[in-house]
Amino acid sequence: MYKYELINDFVKQVFIKIGCYEEDAEKGAEILLAADLRGIPSHGVLRLKDYLNLWENNRINSKANIEVEHETPSTAVVNGGNGFGIMVAPKAMSIAIEKARNVGTGWVSMNNSNHFGIAGYYSMMALKNDMIGITMTNANPLVAPTFSIDRLLGTNPIAVAIPALKQPPFIADFATTPIARGKLDVMHRNGKEAPLGFVQDKLGNPSNNPNILTEGGAILPLGGDNEHGSHKGYCLGSIVDIFSAVLSGANFGPFVPPSVAYLPVLSNSVGKGTGHFFGAIRVDAFQPSDVFKKQMDKWIETFRNATPIEGQSKVLIPGDPEREKETIYKKEGIPLLESVVNELKSISKKYDIPFLR
Amino acid sequence: MYKYELINDFVKQVFIKIGCYEEDAEKGAEILLAADLRGIPSHGVLRLKDYLNLWENNRINSKANIEVEHETPSTAVVNGGNGFGIMVAPKAMSIAIEKARNVGTGWVSMNNSNHFGIAGYYSMMALKNDMIGITMTNANPLVAPTFSIDRLLGTNPIAVAIPALKQPPFIADFATTPIARGKLDVMHRNGKEAPLGFVQDKLGNPSNNPNILTEGGAILPLGGDNEHGSHKGYCLGSIVDIFSAVLSGANFGPFVPPSVAYLPVLSNSVGKGTGHFFGAIRVDAFQPSDVFKKQMDKWIETFRNATPIEGQSKVLIPGDPEREKETIYKKEGIPLLESVVNELKSISKKYDIPFLR
Repeated sequence: MYKYELINDFVKQVFIKIGCYEEDAEKGAEILLAADLRGIPSHGVLRLKDYLNLWENNRINSKANIEVEHETPSTAVVNGGNGFGIMVAPKAMSIAIEKARNVGTGWVSMNNSNHFGIAGYYSMMALKNDMIGITMTNANPLVAPTFSIDRLLGTNPIAVAIPALKQPPFIADFATTPIARGKLDVMHRNGKEAPLGFVQDKLGNPSNNPNILTEGGAILPLGGDNEHGSHKGYCLGSIVDIFSAVLSGANFGPFVPPSVAYLPVLSNSVGKGTGHFFGAIRVDAFQPSDVFKKQMDKWIETFRNATPIEGQSKVLIPGDPEREKETIYKKEGIPLLESVVNELKSISKKYDIPFLR
Repeated sequence: MYKYELINDFVKQVFIKIGCYEEDAEKGAEILLAADLRGIPSHGVLRLKDYLNLWENNRINSKANIEVEHETPSTAVVNGGNGFGIMVAPKAMSIAIEKARNVGTGWVSMNNSNHFGIAGYYSMMALKNDMIGITMTNANPLVAPTFSIDRLLGTNPIAVAIPALKQPPFIADFATTPIARGKLDVMHRNGKEAPLGFVQDKLGNPSNNPNILTEGGAILPLGGDNEHGSHKGYCLGSIVDIFSAVLSGANFGPFVPPSVAYLPVLSNSVGKGTGHFFGAIRVDAFQPSDVFKKQMDKWIETFRNATPIEGQSKVLIPGDPEREKETIYKKEGIPLLESVVNELKSISKKYDIPFLR
């Protein structure tokens, strides 16, 4: 277990060392760590090495300034200046929140950004303003549309955070696929088979091989096969892609640039960098804030008190598992994989920033 | 095959006969028929009998006036006056479109409504205004959240329509479950088993019985079982429910009133009627209209030209299958089930409106 404050300060110092503005470094560290705290290590400090490799290869700008390219009272297109997603994305969400304050809702589509960690963080920014937050992003193409063998979509997540009164907020944050790539890697490393409905081979046949992505295979959309509604997952992933990239002018579908330096820059591009989409909805643009939040309490209690299937302890509300982990990890420290600790140690040496003094 | 114009005129005359305003009757007939035309008969004239039964039992107001209960520049809460959903919902979408014209986007949550036919119709209203349309509705509880045996959510659909330039628009319209109730009924009538991953029995065990809903069973959320991501489908259905009913002050989850007269009015209520949610996004609130639509053409062509799996003729774009049917049915007439024709004949007699003169 590693103390939150120690890892956080280390990450921040590394970002400052590579030229980030101090407040960007601070926010970037906070967002990266938010993933680890919430039990989603695939989007946490495990990513630091990849982020730094991209910077070392001049593929990310550590001192990026965002620019509002176009706006209306409720919308904006924001250019992320090819910065770290975790540093430019919170600024885009702040603009959405400001617009919601003025006209009820705010919607920002961002181009020229990069991998931005966990989507849920940005949606949660809306909560303290008594707003609903919505976040989407496109990502490297790994997912085949229904009936296709080509990888045209990312795991394109959607995150929605909704405030309540006495109950903790509703926080949904999920990929539009049955499984994330990281979990397939874990299965492969443990020598396990993937259940059918997660991936297909390069010919589009159902596959149990969790390593099939390295052999031309693809992740299936949420739903799994067509009979079970994979076309609905394909629709969802497409909507995320279009809102994040066609509205913003970023790269869509198969043109999304890789988020790791060991994959080459794509030779063809249809826009600027990776795209995200952010929304903020003032709840009192619909109902008096207290009325809405009391009703959300009732909604949450209705679902939490539902009868569980025998063998299950309870019915969960979206956000419950992550919040439970956050409470524990904040107190007891964050469990890091040995491989990640070793990476952080190498970074510590390379950038001359002490780790775990 | 039955000519579109004949069925349409018949439905309109019936609505006028029961006291609907003429323009409501016209719009209602158009929307009901839009489902049949697009090959979704479960939401078409098959519903007319249920609609009339509700009216006969004083459970729906045929002459409903909508009322804007609250608004901001980009949002409104609209009371549907307990009217037919197919008559009051298009007015709510028009308000969203008007707001988008003014401030870039418009978002309307509607309470006190009823079953509104196909969600896609309302999203498509945005297209001719160079806007993206978004529609959601909650519905009678038939779906159990992950880990639960209780039916707390409807099949809660999401419809998103996005304009293109030379290509036909992208139109996604899907339930947040692997299957709609109507398709289970068809399997049952044909003596077929349901594949695993569609429904569970009253104890929450996986079931092959397409008739299990009549025995206390439930439809599963999109994803099927928890391993394949049913919690993501549960999140989606919940978001639709909260946007449609908590933002508007309608009934949520298990409190949504039945859309058929043979089920009793629920004794407990947490809001007004059924809820819907509508959004309109002016594409030029983000990109110049032509730039956006050209890029959508490129998006659509990229996906349409993807390599199909052997045995599949092509990769589909959301909206393709429905548009193909619409083209044929408009020309050749709509195929109606014999049972539906018989229902229409009974209605013809009861309300003294000639059918198929």
